[in-house]
Amino acid sequence: MTYCLGIINQLGIVMASDSRTNAGVDYISSYRKMFDLSLPGERSIIICNSGSLSVSQGVLTLLNRDIQNKEEQNLHTLENMYDMARYIGNKSREIQDRDRPWLEKDGIDYSCNFLLGGQIKGEVPQLYLIYPQGNFIQATPETPFLQIGETKYGKPILDRTITYNTPLEDVAKCALLSLDSTMKSNISVGPPINLVMYQADSFEINRKLELRIGAPYIAKIRKLWEESVRHAFESMPEIEWEQETNDSEEDIFID
Amino acid sequence: MTYCLGIINQLGIVMASDSRTNAGVDYISSYRKMFDLSLPGERSIIICNSGSLSVSQGVLTLLNRDIQNKEEQNLHTLENMYDMARYIGNKSREIQDRDRPWLEKDGIDYSCNFLLGGQIKGEVPQLYLIYPQGNFIQATPETPFLQIGETKYGKPILDRTITYNTPLEDVAKCALLSLDSTMKSNISVGPPINLVMYQADSFEINRKLELRIGAPYIAKIRKLWEESVRHAFESMPEIEWEQETNDSEEDIFID
Repeated sequence: MTYCLGIINQLGIVMASDSRTNAGVDYISSYRKMFDLSLPGERSIIICNSGSLSVSQGVLTLLNRDIQNKEEQNLHTLENMYDMARYIGNKSREIQDRDRPWLEKDGIDYSCNFLLGGQIKGEVPQLYLIYPQGNFIQATPETPFLQIGETKYGKPILDRTITYNTPLEDVAKCALLSLDSTMKSNISVGPPINLVMYQADSFEINRKLELRIGAPYIAKIRKLWEESVRHAFESMPEIEWEQETNDSEEDIFID
Repeated sequence: MTYCLGIINQLGIVMASDSRTNAGVDYISSYRKMFDLSLPGERSIIICNSGSLSVSQGVLTLLNRDIQNKEEQNLHTLENMYDMARYIGNKSREIQDRDRPWLEKDGIDYSCNFLLGGQIKGEVPQLYLIYPQGNFIQATPETPFLQIGETKYGKPILDRTITYNTPLEDVAKCALLSLDSTMKSNISVGPPINLVMYQADSFEINRKLELRIGAPYIAKIRKLWEESVRHAFESMPEIEWEQETNDSEEDIFID
């Protein structure tokens, strides 16, 4: 499994990813799932991936090869982020066309999702989620985050804290907590954690972080978070139970 | 969808359930998913269900009918909770045997899960999860909660707060917050919420609560919780970003 997360607001973009992959519980390994394909000073481009490792590595290889071979269409030449999302979707379709019949024969999952976040000069920062089918959606102010992989455990904290005006440093903390909640509840999501913060109109990724197993910062925020949650929870108002009555009959399901 | 939760510890048992059912997003209704089948003074029995409504209603009907017909084997005569879990599993198999071929033909899901919590005189309180296949597991001190239905959104808060020694009133608050987190993240889980608290060796369910849409208590704890979470989160230590270096090369995936 995997958990990657992108959060966008008027101040910039934060993206985070774990590094655990598994083919069954008896084959677990680490692969980076966040890639910086920026052209510093001109365009900032961060891509995260989840799903089939062979398909997503294939897509990343094609993306890099097109840049290196200076193909007419590549991530450094395409005119806008929308076209970049479409181009990544097409690369994903290309790899799937090649491998899908063979994977399907043995019931192997070949789907993969991508997050694309960044900014091109002349545009505002944008964040996209590219589906396994190659189509895609964009994050908007109403729901300023997109997730791929194991998305559920880390969503409640985002739902409760993130708005389109939250300062970027706080957004980054929230992303780490969302990753940490997921790691705690699902062992198929694990470190190292990669985190980047992009400030709108800076055109360079100047804040990045890799947190490995046992990183003191992760231990520190986990401890502080758990204490705060427990404290919050102890300060909750007492439950106003129903008055005791002999109403057992109405609770019984009558056939 | 559904979310039901049982938490057991040395002080007793808390169980909670939502009431939303849906057959597609365009057919949403409310059905109670928690049933009190206690024999007050002798044995306390709470059952929650998730999954196919027709199958689980069928099972509940059989359980009630056996009590009313004073069958030799029923929830009020079986000697221990383990046998009760097995008996409920068998009823579930019975209904499935009857309907499964017809449901399978049209690809309709017929699976359902049950939680069984309570205490029989002479035994300690126990909590079981009965799977769609009729087999079952029991909660233990290491993982003192069991969930059925949409389990993921509400799990992080349990993982961070509940232990085998948490006071029952706090366990009940935590169950409500776990339900509320799930309702916030998944609209297919919804009110009324049913909550019961059972104190070990009391042999009666004397604390119960039904919270309907717009219940002031739910609004109150949600607001307090969100404030606390946001506060906790703002008091987190600053992120220790990596030193700025020109290390863009090592981040690029080389093909």
